[in-house]
Amino acid sequence: MEHPVALIVQKFGGSSVADAESVKRVAKRIAATRRAGNDVVVVVSAMGDTTDELLDLAQQVTPLPPQRELDILLTAGERISMSLLAMAINNLGVKAKSFTGQQAGVITDAVHGKARIVDVVPHRIRETVERGQVAIVAGFQGVTESTNDVTTLGRGGSDTTAVALAAGLGADVCEIYTDVDGVFTADPRIVPAARKIDRITYEEMLELAASGAKVLALRCVEYGRRYGVPIHVRSSFSGKEGTFVSGTTHPLGAPVAALAQPTDPSSSAVPEELVMEAPIISGVAHDRSEAKITVVGVPDVPGTAARIFEVVAGSGANIDMIVQNVSVARTGLTDISFTLPDGDGAAALSALSRIQEEIRFDSLQYDDQIGKLSLVGAGMKSHPGVSARLFGALRDAGINIEMISTSEIRISVVTRADDLDDAVRAVHSAFELDSDTDEAVVYGGTGR
Amino acid sequence: MEHPVALIVQKFGGSSVADAESVKRVAKRIAATRRAGNDVVVVVSAMGDTTDELLDLAQQVTPLPPQRELDILLTAGERISMSLLAMAINNLGVKAKSFTGQQAGVITDAVHGKARIVDVVPHRIRETVERGQVAIVAGFQGVTESTNDVTTLGRGGSDTTAVALAAGLGADVCEIYTDVDGVFTADPRIVPAARKIDRITYEEMLELAASGAKVLALRCVEYGRRYGVPIHVRSSFSGKEGTFVSGTTHPLGAPVAALAQPTDPSSSAVPEELVMEAPIISGVAHDRSEAKITVVGVPDVPGTAARIFEVVAGSGANIDMIVQNVSVARTGLTDISFTLPDGDGAAALSALSRIQEEIRFDSLQYDDQIGKLSLVGAGMKSHPGVSARLFGALRDAGINIEMISTSEIRISVVTRADDLDDAVRAVHSAFELDSDTDEAVVYGGTGR
Repeated sequence: MEHPVALIVQKFGGSSVADAESVKRVAKRIAATRRAGNDVVVVVSAMGDTTDELLDLAQQVTPLPPQRELDILLTAGERISMSLLAMAINNLGVKAKSFTGQQAGVITDAVHGKARIVDVVPHRIRETVERGQVAIVAGFQGVTESTNDVTTLGRGGSDTTAVALAAGLGADVCEIYTDVDGVFTADPRIVPAARKIDRITYEEMLELAASGAKVLALRCVEYGRRYGVPIHVRSSFSGKEGTFVSGTTHPLGAPVAALAQPTDPSSSAVPEELVMEAPIISGVAHDRSEAKITVVGVPDVPGTAARIFEVVAGSGANIDMIVQNVSVARTGLTDISFTLPDGDGAAALSALSRIQEEIRFDSLQYDDQIGKLSLVGAGMKSHPGVSARLFGALRDAGINIEMISTSEIRISVVTRADDLDDAVRAVHSAFELDSDTDEAVVYGGTGR
Repeated sequence: MEHPVALIVQKFGGSSVADAESVKRVAKRIAATRRAGNDVVVVVSAMGDTTDELLDLAQQVTPLPPQRELDILLTAGERISMSLLAMAINNLGVKAKSFTGQQAGVITDAVHGKARIVDVVPHRIRETVERGQVAIVAGFQGVTESTNDVTTLGRGGSDTTAVALAAGLGADVCEIYTDVDGVFTADPRIVPAARKIDRITYEEMLELAASGAKVLALRCVEYGRRYGVPIHVRSSFSGKEGTFVSGTTHPLGAPVAALAQPTDPSSSAVPEELVMEAPIISGVAHDRSEAKITVVGVPDVPGTAARIFEVVAGSGANIDMIVQNVSVARTGLTDISFTLPDGDGAAALSALSRIQEEIRFDSLQYDDQIGKLSLVGAGMKSHPGVSARLFGALRDAGINIEMISTSEIRISVVTRADDLDDAVRAVHSAFELDSDTDEAVVYGGTGR
């Protein structure tokens, strides 16, 4: 009731609408939001396992379904969930209508299976809301402008639909409902002392999402940042506030609260100016889904690295971290290692094999038993103390670091996959993020 | 290969695409038709029980789903079958693309749940066919022109989509694939000696469909007649020719073959002119889905019957046969009986009860244990011998007739439901339609 005439976009994922009972539960929540005086637009994913079942059907018919047809098939899923949800809301005495991506004006490019939204023209949605009705929109889908063909947005598509619609409608907030209470300082399944983050900036959230935090899709956060849409990640099982992702961590525009841990733990009375500039650690993310490829014995001549990464990119792989060392095998040679999603490994290896003669490297090594830990927080780069404390914590825990990469607000290290949980716990404690300490503004990867 | 550059519309129902294996089988048939040099447009229904499963989901959410949302829900079914079918055809090396009712240009009125097609604008289908690709179109659905909302066509909707598309595209033939070999002289489950009809006119097919033959939907035949679309009803399990429904029963425009039974069975040598005018019996249809309402003791004053049927029509019931008798109860009064689909019975009864005071009738009787037998064929009305033979056959079989109604090419009688099978067999034999006789042009209700 803080915003009596607010326009709220609410997004519910597949697990929130897994069966008729869940659909009715979600309908109650939506009806209550509407009855509290808000205008409500809802984005919904396909029910539970529908998408997997449809993919399975396609596999039974052909090993290589055309992407255009696959998109038509998969969008049947949201068609089912959105109409059922609209029915359930009407049944509670609140008027609701459902709309496909096309009807909602979600225009995309023609890249079937992972289309990008190019425009949102939500005339019908606005019209519906102005009539006092709830508009239910199919997530994950859009339509090409030129051919009127149905497209899907790929991973995290429904979150992106929600944020894009919120931007197009000028909504006050985009609520992403999930099965956890919000964004945490670390995955609570690994770090039981992890705490919910109340507020976080788009930039920090982007680093966390890119580093393995699964609670929000990367592209949805990117979209939110570009259009300044406040995102509220919260639980569909409780009424508690979750995590606000926005352009600032100042609650209600107030000055930054000095919540960070002191730069020197031994000093208990730090001048306020110093604290204001202290790094604010958001949280510890982790990622077990990457693999490492090492190109062994590469002749150390200009252009070789460029050629290698040109070929790897051409194979469709998204390269993450890159490290180049002097070769341990022979002098005049270097070893080049990089990480990539393990699903892209086979294609990258086969592309590289094809240029072995041309580049004249010795061999390729593939390692999918790696883990990546990322520490994310504002103002990190200008505080060398942060990396020192991170490396110290890992050393004390007896964990070997294989690769390191950094950005303005993130430090990532690669360890053995088996060491990853211990590493996350050690770093979480070292930065005093555990919930028995006093600091508050923090995070970590989790969720589905 | 009779028409090397023919444009053929093929319609496959839900039982033909019940699972992935059936989809692949249908795909082979379509690919073969295309490879034989024909242009092919396919209309497909939802897979097997999909529609019932979706209806069941809706019921779990609300007892009274809004029709607009129900239409959106149900159209998910064809979305799944059409994309899977397109995938399966592509997998056989024949290019195919699927299209929703909207994309195919099927424009309807806004009566959700039983919309009527008002126009077909198949630009994209024509374009696809001209590129040498197979177009797969979702049956049973369309879109309103004004609001761009999805509609469903109701019962027999996919057959109607197929014939409407065939008309819009100027197709050479519309093939309706089913699980029987064609239209029969009677339901083969009741009359084992029933025979497949090779050719039948739209008018006779309309009477058969209206009289309970389920193999083709009434409105699909109506559409075919209006636009002169030749319809070929055939089995999806064999390559055999089925039944051609068209404006004439002349095969290839040749003169009518003198295939009818002689007007006088005792005369074996009938002049050809006489045979040409002899009634041609198409077949015996039956219908167990109707009920009879009798309004007992209606004052015999002008306007009463009109008022009764006005009220019944207002309740949404489709009245079939009507009989008015002098009342057996009291003089000066009549009894009015009529038949209607038994699903409409409750609404009609309750509407009639509300005018009991106004009309001052004695009581209402409801009877859903009736059966209707219809004999259909050209030139019947001008041959009194036909009804005499029909009534004689029923008398000989000891079956009581409760109501009678006739049209130019049909005689229908109502019997007890329990007597219906015997009645169908007796009439089928009396008109020498059994397959051990020589006559050929004949029919009967059956199918799914």
